[in-house]
Amino acid sequence: MATIKDVAGRAGVSVATVSRVLNGNGYVHEDTRQKVEEAIRALNYTPNEVARSLYKKKSKLVGLLLPDITNPYFPQLARGVEDRMQENDYRLIFGNSDENREKEMDYIQTFIQNHVVGIISSTNDPGAEMYAELRIPIVFLDRTTSDRPSVYADGREGGRLAAREIIKRGSKRITIIQGPAHVGPAMDRYEGAVEVVRERGLPYDVLKTTSFSFTEAEGWAQDLFRLYPDTDGVIASNDIVASAVLQEAFRLGKRVPEDVQIIGFDDIPLSRLLAPSLSTIHQPAYEMGREAAELLIQLMEGQHIERKSKQYPVHFIERQTTRKVD
Amino acid sequence: MATIKDVAGRAGVSVATVSRVLNGNGYVHEDTRQKVEEAIRALNYTPNEVARSLYKKKSKLVGLLLPDITNPYFPQLARGVEDRMQENDYRLIFGNSDENREKEMDYIQTFIQNHVVGIISSTNDPGAEMYAELRIPIVFLDRTTSDRPSVYADGREGGRLAAREIIKRGSKRITIIQGPAHVGPAMDRYEGAVEVVRERGLPYDVLKTTSFSFTEAEGWAQDLFRLYPDTDGVIASNDIVASAVLQEAFRLGKRVPEDVQIIGFDDIPLSRLLAPSLSTIHQPAYEMGREAAELLIQLMEGQHIERKSKQYPVHFIERQTTRKVD
Repeated sequence: MATIKDVAGRAGVSVATVSRVLNGNGYVHEDTRQKVEEAIRALNYTPNEVARSLYKKKSKLVGLLLPDITNPYFPQLARGVEDRMQENDYRLIFGNSDENREKEMDYIQTFIQNHVVGIISSTNDPGAEMYAELRIPIVFLDRTTSDRPSVYADGREGGRLAAREIIKRGSKRITIIQGPAHVGPAMDRYEGAVEVVRERGLPYDVLKTTSFSFTEAEGWAQDLFRLYPDTDGVIASNDIVASAVLQEAFRLGKRVPEDVQIIGFDDIPLSRLLAPSLSTIHQPAYEMGREAAELLIQLMEGQHIERKSKQYPVHFIERQTTRKVD
Repeated sequence: MATIKDVAGRAGVSVATVSRVLNGNGYVHEDTRQKVEEAIRALNYTPNEVARSLYKKKSKLVGLLLPDITNPYFPQLARGVEDRMQENDYRLIFGNSDENREKEMDYIQTFIQNHVVGIISSTNDPGAEMYAELRIPIVFLDRTTSDRPSVYADGREGGRLAAREIIKRGSKRITIIQGPAHVGPAMDRYEGAVEVVRERGLPYDVLKTTSFSFTEAEGWAQDLFRLYPDTDGVIASNDIVASAVLQEAFRLGKRVPEDVQIIGFDDIPLSRLLAPSLSTIHQPAYEMGREAAELLIQLMEGQHIERKSKQYPVHFIERQTTRKVD
């Protein structure tokens, strides 16, 4: 079977030139191109798989903006988006906004410059001008409860659920960890928890935090037990922060769940690998990612849309950081 | 200040048409374009930030292929790559290969079709034809010890280190969990561990596994203690699998590290949030990602390359799943 070298030899050019002809990129003089094409025909040369693929239809690009893929919740969302997009032959350009407005805008610009045909964005500000002016379909994912096309979980109900479950299981001095104030779902779940604790007339403390970072969470966990040593129940802003609280409780010799109960949020994969495993509020991240992709595909392909927004219910996952009830 | 609506009104066209003129995408009749441009001049209209950005230099795309971002090790690598690329105004298209040859090739093709100027690939097969035929710079990351431009950690030494540390701390019946056979670094660390355990003449068992998946790891952890109930030391294939072993030991009422010591691999962020926190072999994932990006930038920009490959040393992180020694 003829190789690319045989073609180059017969045409009297370099392998790189043959490759440029096959790939259609880079400058090749018209005479040279003809020589190469003659050699390809004469030798009945079949280009290799990669070269062949270039004759196939080009996959279209979709932009995916996430806050930070080092938070294990977001890779689940991203996989959901990617897997569904793959099925319809779309591919992803992606970026981490770090919840930073400038970075977010920079990526949206990059997406447009690279001619994406649609965007999925986990933004805290779906009303931003840059989104209003877009002339391609966009779906908001996770970070918003906008009326525009969006997929998100019921964070407020999640907060209520966490509070109800921890109270039902006997916590009387609850500390609620409030996530970053500019992150919509963090505030939703915080407000849901406060709502229920107040309704029940229980005393509670609030620990304000500014991120979901692993390293910072350890410091907040220390603050928590120093500022509120009588805490017997912690409603954490997410599973990462809950893990740090669990570790700190362990370090202080507190028994979990006997002395302190802990409930996280998200149900990231590692939450059940913790020892004791973490009780938490489950958000169906992978499914939400797929659903956002599905909705965007419908919008991009001009299909009839039944519902522009989808709110996913959340539920309590009972594991070992909460006590048993009958 | 004039708005896009004012421009549309004066030119007698829709806002969408003005937007198409500004963005330079979609068809606009030449007469219409002139009318819009006249209106823009007459009103001294300044397009908004997104539109303005389109006059800026277009960011170039780089392809990033990872095995699976739902394994928390890879988002660290990806952040390193992304952050360094951002600094030189490159952006990423990305994909998960799932260690699957076909998916890998499909993404490499997509990258080329979308005119990436360079590729970073965590492949198990850097010698594959598709890579040999590429006419753009490529850097291999993490999955290989190729002579071609690549950045990786010293997995074999990592395996040796894990074995030395667990033996030094008193384990006498070690089980080594062997990661997926087609994943280079998994085999390197496995072979390193076996080398040391054999040298010391200790009996040992091997549990073969086929992935680093969260869900499967729980099953393997159960197998481990059922098949090898006398195990007093586990060298896990990575931190996820180690977490599952820790959880299973806890469930069986074994004390860690008194009855069983456990050492992981990777040092993913959650490993120190486990309770007890996980002793492990640290790989500098974020730095490795940055370094791969750095090397690719040098190759893409035709700079002189000092060293084409960089092997990172690994080191033992002593936490609570191993016993103390003097």
